[in-house]
Amino acid sequence: MNRLNLSEAGFEQAFDALLAAARDSDADVDAAVKSIVDDVRAKGDEALIELSHRFDRVDLKAQSLRVSEAEIDDAIDRAPRDARDALAFAHGRIEAYHARQKPADLRFTDALGVELGWRWRPIEAVGLYVPGGTASYPSSVLMNAVPAKVAGCARVVMTVPTPDGVLNPLVLAAARLAGVDEIYRVGGAQAVAALAYGTATIAPVAKIVGPGNAFVAAAKRRVFGTVGIDMIAGPSEVVILADRTAEPAWIAADLLAQAEHDTAAQSILITDDTALAADVEREVERQLATLPRAAIAGASWRHFGAVILVPNLRDAVRLVDRLAPEHLEIIAEDAEGLADAIHNAGAIFLGSYTPEAIGDYVGGSNHVLPTARSARFSSGLGVLDFMKRTSILRCDATNLAALAPAAIALGRAEGLDAHAASVDIRTRRG
Amino acid sequence: MNRLNLSEAGFEQAFDALLAAARDSDADVDAAVKSIVDDVRAKGDEALIELSHRFDRVDLKAQSLRVSEAEIDDAIDRAPRDARDALAFAHGRIEAYHARQKPADLRFTDALGVELGWRWRPIEAVGLYVPGGTASYPSSVLMNAVPAKVAGCARVVMTVPTPDGVLNPLVLAAARLAGVDEIYRVGGAQAVAALAYGTATIAPVAKIVGPGNAFVAAAKRRVFGTVGIDMIAGPSEVVILADRTAEPAWIAADLLAQAEHDTAAQSILITDDTALAADVEREVERQLATLPRAAIAGASWRHFGAVILVPNLRDAVRLVDRLAPEHLEIIAEDAEGLADAIHNAGAIFLGSYTPEAIGDYVGGSNHVLPTARSARFSSGLGVLDFMKRTSILRCDATNLAALAPAAIALGRAEGLDAHAASVDIRTRRG
Repeated sequence: MNRLNLSEAGFEQAFDALLAAARDSDADVDAAVKSIVDDVRAKGDEALIELSHRFDRVDLKAQSLRVSEAEIDDAIDRAPRDARDALAFAHGRIEAYHARQKPADLRFTDALGVELGWRWRPIEAVGLYVPGGTASYPSSVLMNAVPAKVAGCARVVMTVPTPDGVLNPLVLAAARLAGVDEIYRVGGAQAVAALAYGTATIAPVAKIVGPGNAFVAAAKRRVFGTVGIDMIAGPSEVVILADRTAEPAWIAADLLAQAEHDTAAQSILITDDTALAADVEREVERQLATLPRAAIAGASWRHFGAVILVPNLRDAVRLVDRLAPEHLEIIAEDAEGLADAIHNAGAIFLGSYTPEAIGDYVGGSNHVLPTARSARFSSGLGVLDFMKRTSILRCDATNLAALAPAAIALGRAEGLDAHAASVDIRTRRG
Repeated sequence: MNRLNLSEAGFEQAFDALLAAARDSDADVDAAVKSIVDDVRAKGDEALIELSHRFDRVDLKAQSLRVSEAEIDDAIDRAPRDARDALAFAHGRIEAYHARQKPADLRFTDALGVELGWRWRPIEAVGLYVPGGTASYPSSVLMNAVPAKVAGCARVVMTVPTPDGVLNPLVLAAARLAGVDEIYRVGGAQAVAALAYGTATIAPVAKIVGPGNAFVAAAKRRVFGTVGIDMIAGPSEVVILADRTAEPAWIAADLLAQAEHDTAAQSILITDDTALAADVEREVERQLATLPRAAIAGASWRHFGAVILVPNLRDAVRLVDRLAPEHLEIIAEDAEGLADAIHNAGAIFLGSYTPEAIGDYVGGSNHVLPTARSARFSSGLGVLDFMKRTSILRCDATNLAALAPAAIALGRAEGLDAHAASVDIRTRRG
């Protein structure tokens, strides 16, 4: 764990090192992924069957690539009741929040009488990648599928690998709740290729979202352009801004909740209270002792965790903006004022009673958020990511005549005389 | 030029071939770009000076990398008056249109008393790449810089190469109008690297937008993640949907306005009127004869141009959706109905008096639009591309207690016990 103090010499170097710490293991799998993608493009379902045999040790026939409605029914029956109920509760809240994100169309007439505007339409078909094994999170299915369905996407297609034939029944329950239209038991780069280019069984989609390992990330980068993709997610991170009003044990619990995700996760406390810093450090060690994922959370905390002391929380504003954290908790007297002063964060959690884990599951807002400082320039997943805007323009003879001189002048100035001519030919008449 | 008829055998194959035609020369410059980017990261301004000498044949001292206000004043004085006035007219219209795109923040309290919402903030610093030479379009400066300034970006930085020392004065005039804050005379992959990583003279930005050649596109792909980027633009394209009410000479002029951009540009007419098709073909040849850029426009039309006959314009809807054109003109009796039925287009131009060139310059909407079928999943440039959304959540002790059981159940179901514990610890108290 890194201890920094804004008032001490060497702070800038230490903070820069924290910012620059390469937490992502950028495995170079590009060559392998290229070969997989080419294989799926060339051989379609046959390649999916071969690759699933090789990577997931499952024997799929093409006709069983798709998970049937009966299988989904069975899996839901087998899933624990309390978790199913919790998913339904989460689904309702996530849907209500995202329904407010639906954008409005606009059509207006300006002073010249020109009709202008835009309209939003859903992306027609969207692919949702869901990882297999222990990283197969039903909450992520909701977070990716609900905004797509709220947007109005007609076809939401999920792919999920079934290593050794195992498929998390709660993932199927979440897909059913969210209204996913088709589910295929295939994963890795081969699933991304199938979604982008299509096979006999899987019709292609126009955009692919969802988290995945290095192979999935490389495949998404490779098919970008043919289809849209969401951001490539890095390891998760939290910054907690806290003053003396904060409860050390709660702060420690939140730091560890982040750290348990991944040894590359990052948890940072920034405080103006020396006693709080010490108490939180002690609490982290105490709580680590009983944590099932102590090995992961401990490694994350030791390597990437940090406690940063500042003279005043206002001094932390520029530090937070440089970190641009995925999650920002503010537990301080002037939480709203601090939140307002900070520019860069994926999501802000205000006050003592808003642990970040609430946002992961049942708050209603999306838990797919910008990582690795990308909150400087990008947003969490939302309904807009599943829609596209078309601009609309309509002139008539009168207002075209008013616009024409400037359009013709600019076309000619840019050496694009055919542009100018296409305007000129309409105004010369009559 | 390709002639297709929906009613004839072999249409599907011909249409698929049209869709699949590789118009983009995907030059493999990745290795060269990697070396340039590494060079700029290692040597900063010194690399910019060396590379500008090598590629643009200009001798820059580090202190003259930045274009001075006096130089901008001088250039504006030298620029032709009518073009400057036209730019000012365009600027006013583009600004007015984009001002309507500013998104609203939202903060609401749900039935449980949970406070939810989001807020939008401008990206703090944005880089705008402007190509040099003949592709140095002042209108593109407006289209990229105006939405950034409307969004509220504090720092809009422009880079433009000056091959052989030449800099288009209208580009500087457009930058001044749009409120660009800094201008540097550097281009290519080295400019993109400088914007992403910074040098002694150029402070880094958080997002880079704007068109460029293969080197610029490869550099943008390479720095993506460190900074945000806009779409990688492909060759421009138009689809014109026209019935017997259309004027053949005007349609021909619009097809050629698109074709003159680039030999890889694509112009397609879809009509239900055999006579119109023949008349437009004749008009294209006639107008080509007097066009300054006839060589480019002619090559584009011959290789990638198409006239598609359909029994009824309604039959064209699914064809247009598959083409997902950057620009769609609809010149037909039921223009609004057809526009409504079509899902995928970057921009729609309605009626006889709305040539696409109006949208390029003075309509007010943005001319940076999705190419290469990406209108299936993406939108033209707008104010949202220069802002980011932060979600906000605040619970209190009472509503946290209501949310806690579901959050704890999901945390445990996902094997993330520290997540569950961070909620549990707050509800066990008191």
